[in-house]
Amino acid sequence: MKQSLGAKILVGATTVWVVGTYDREGKPNLMTAAWGGVCCSDPPCIGVSLRKATYSYAGIVERKAFTVNIPSARHVKETDYAGIASGRDTDKWQATGLTPERSELVDAPYVAEFPLVLECRLFRTLELGLHTRFIGEIVNVKAEESMLGEDRSIDIERMDAFLYIPGIRTYHRIGPYLGKAHSIGAGFRKNQT
Amino acid sequence: MKQSLGAKILVGATTVWVVGTYDREGKPNLMTAAWGGVCCSDPPCIGVSLRKATYSYAGIVERKAFTVNIPSARHVKETDYAGIASGRDTDKWQATGLTPERSELVDAPYVAEFPLVLECRLFRTLELGLHTRFIGEIVNVKAEESMLGEDRSIDIERMDAFLYIPGIRTYHRIGPYLGKAHSIGAGFRKNQT
Repeated sequence: MKQSLGAKILVGATTVWVVGTYDREGKPNLMTAAWGGVCCSDPPCIGVSLRKATYSYAGIVERKAFTVNIPSARHVKETDYAGIASGRDTDKWQATGLTPERSELVDAPYVAEFPLVLECRLFRTLELGLHTRFIGEIVNVKAEESMLGEDRSIDIERMDAFLYIPGIRTYHRIGPYLGKAHSIGAGFRKNQT
Repeated sequence: MKQSLGAKILVGATTVWVVGTYDREGKPNLMTAAWGGVCCSDPPCIGVSLRKATYSYAGIVERKAFTVNIPSARHVKETDYAGIASGRDTDKWQATGLTPERSELVDAPYVAEFPLVLECRLFRTLELGLHTRFIGEIVNVKAEESMLGEDRSIDIERMDAFLYIPGIRTYHRIGPYLGKAHSIGAGFRKNQT
């Protein structure tokens, strides 16, 4: 039996997206965004949604670039803090001890300590309401060598990425393997009439 | 030490998004999308990316509506199948045994067996390249009563939603609790200078 809960945001889980930007003066900032995700395979694009009130907003508009940094669970506190404080009155790098590294490809800094970094050139900007969606073309992915498996794919256990559950505002680890995508469901073909 | 892997899509994990649509004749279809996510808090919006070649694409353009259905792990095979087969030559409902239910609010069907359903009115359409991003305004959320905790919030363990890991194309369960968002990182404020 289903209950209607109204027009609200309830989804399952999402990756935690930490956005890296420079401001007008070249000061690096980082900010944790709840709303983000891949938008297109070709060109490879990722979107993040920011409120105009955030300090990072102007940085993206100005520099037409940002990075998306994906943390490991051992940086859950630093990541959470980056979503609480504002770069307007805080140096989040100094507060957390994280290190801004300059991207050689786009005009934005990335988090040296995080295992996965997407370097993005601003591709589209979409005003939606409270949030503006910035869609970046991923020009390069940087990955920590120690979390790469064979054939340079991600070893998700070594990466130890974590999740944000929007409905209840909690962080969770990634759990046990359930199955191989584009494969585990193939059996239904046999049942077709 | 970081390795550059080029312009590709590697992220952590994402919810599995199953999109429900009607075609021109009113035949319901469902399709699993890898790329999706919340875009805006107000109005509450969710985006899903579809290739023009999919059967669902025309359904959204025609009906200006879709549902986003979030499955539990016990339907991982049905969900995977919905991303393999095409509604052009397959009745995925019949093949999987899932039940299309008509939304009373938007012109789209939802999956009766899935625990969480977002009923969406098409809000924006964005051509990006291989994929088109459809952004829907969430006009209502339907949740299975049995997975709601106190105060009608989601009990993520009862929901048993699962994840898709794009880089390696696997499904995983949601793992153990790590901490409370907008809270666990607050301690860094004390360290500020």
